[in-house]
Amino acid sequence: MALYNQITIIGLGLIGSSMARGIKERGLTDKLIGFDNNKEYHSTIQSLELVDDLAKTIENSVENSDLVILATPVGTYSEISKKIAPSLKEGSTITDVGSVKSSVLKMLSAHIPDHVHLIPAHPVAGTEQSGPKAGFSKLFHDRWAIITPPEGADKEAIENLKQFWEALGSNVEMMDPDHHDQVLAITSHIPHLIAYNIVGTARDLETVTKSEVIKFSAGGFRDFTRIAASNPTMWRDVFLNNKDAVLEMLGRFSEDLTALQRAIRWEDGDALYDMFEKTRRIRKQIIDAGQDEDVTDFGRHQDD
Amino acid sequence: MALYNQITIIGLGLIGSSMARGIKERGLTDKLIGFDNNKEYHSTIQSLELVDDLAKTIENSVENSDLVILATPVGTYSEISKKIAPSLKEGSTITDVGSVKSSVLKMLSAHIPDHVHLIPAHPVAGTEQSGPKAGFSKLFHDRWAIITPPEGADKEAIENLKQFWEALGSNVEMMDPDHHDQVLAITSHIPHLIAYNIVGTARDLETVTKSEVIKFSAGGFRDFTRIAASNPTMWRDVFLNNKDAVLEMLGRFSEDLTALQRAIRWEDGDALYDMFEKTRRIRKQIIDAGQDEDVTDFGRHQDD
Repeated sequence: MALYNQITIIGLGLIGSSMARGIKERGLTDKLIGFDNNKEYHSTIQSLELVDDLAKTIENSVENSDLVILATPVGTYSEISKKIAPSLKEGSTITDVGSVKSSVLKMLSAHIPDHVHLIPAHPVAGTEQSGPKAGFSKLFHDRWAIITPPEGADKEAIENLKQFWEALGSNVEMMDPDHHDQVLAITSHIPHLIAYNIVGTARDLETVTKSEVIKFSAGGFRDFTRIAASNPTMWRDVFLNNKDAVLEMLGRFSEDLTALQRAIRWEDGDALYDMFEKTRRIRKQIIDAGQDEDVTDFGRHQDD
Repeated sequence: MALYNQITIIGLGLIGSSMARGIKERGLTDKLIGFDNNKEYHSTIQSLELVDDLAKTIENSVENSDLVILATPVGTYSEISKKIAPSLKEGSTITDVGSVKSSVLKMLSAHIPDHVHLIPAHPVAGTEQSGPKAGFSKLFHDRWAIITPPEGADKEAIENLKQFWEALGSNVEMMDPDHHDQVLAITSHIPHLIAYNIVGTARDLETVTKSEVIKFSAGGFRDFTRIAASNPTMWRDVFLNNKDAVLEMLGRFSEDLTALQRAIRWEDGDALYDMFEKTRRIRKQIIDAGQDEDVTDFGRHQDD
């Protein structure tokens, strides 16, 4: 079922190429155009037949498209939207997949003309891998896609984008952009920041060698290295564009960590136990909600 | 090959029961005795035939055993070692599996008689599950077991314990107890503490509901909930017994996090990018070292 006659994906990394695969598999468009300014990706994009047409210029890529999807790091949105604005089709929809939504709305609103429907969105899905080879169509299955329409956005355009994400396998939630940024700050941005941070701290120690960190990582550390292996450009842009919510949540995280630190210093075993006991239940609820799999140790022992 | 005529395991939780399974599978003893003061576990221990004999008293459990293994939370070691000391066989070995080693050596040395070889150890392996049902014999395969013999310990007793851990599938490393505690503070204790902490911070937010945290956890948060679901008693005892190393590493972690926080506040994109780029390599090295599996997203998409 073709939901849009022509779709353009700008940026065919992990997310963009996963969408391309899903769009093709489900037949969601008659013509899929791609654009990626990273020339190293071009041969992969072509040999995997991710798109019907890999456009030579970004302006050409959006002409006549009914849905244009930005799937590049959010730091590129201002420049890209300025460039493509004159070529966007009247009545078409422009959307994105960025992990921040409030600043994205501001950046895009500044350039996108009134005759184009601007409907930002964010699929809450990903892996630690990057690039067109890393994508796969099932990335969005049973994950949430959050749509953050600006006030007064066209109802039909919103509904079409909702159907599009559902066709890719996602559940759809509508959300205010500011609230989105708060929710994602704690569920995604802060976890990434502290994962990056602990890997950095471990690397810089003098008393413990890097080879020891690697050797004995099965004690817990290796879990953190997975998300600390994510795309650095994308994450730099997330933090720069969700500054307020991230700094607020980080303040709370540090405050709570200081309380734990104090409990350790003063050997307050009861406070530690209470804290460790409560957090256990959250994991069960995440598994019950289908957002993680109920396999011990992430299933690491299945192959043994 | 029976390495010890009789072995006793005190505490048949995740680690103790995994050892029991491995000992039986490999035939590492002629007689395996178990003791667990949690009566709720007894029917499981018996129906799974984890041990040859489930002793009624802890004193009885160690009589005539050539190897006694403490596999209870380290906070119980003082009391247990005091109780069993008079019943330990002359020339036998007492060891443990605790995640801290310096304080363990102090606690046990105070009670264990000179005619018993005290050789503490720590298998760097585990899952987020607890109890005798959660154990499995392959838990220690390709993991590291760290042996921390006190000065002047009997060479043959050390060598036997090394062979024992190798028979369970582990690689063995000898280490000074203080150095062990430093290494594990960064590779295991701090990761667990910050995982517990972020789950706690998320739970206490007013602006983001708990159901939102659960729903959108695929963005990164859910990784942290795995280790924050670990045994709370065990972890309370780890932090109380590795206070100095944990507080030192935590100080460095917080210092580094403050630097990242500052880079976000001052929008220093280059500093963020540099940091995020460097940490990527560590994961590759962990995978190359066989300490994690090379599957995207911990293999979560394999069943789709």
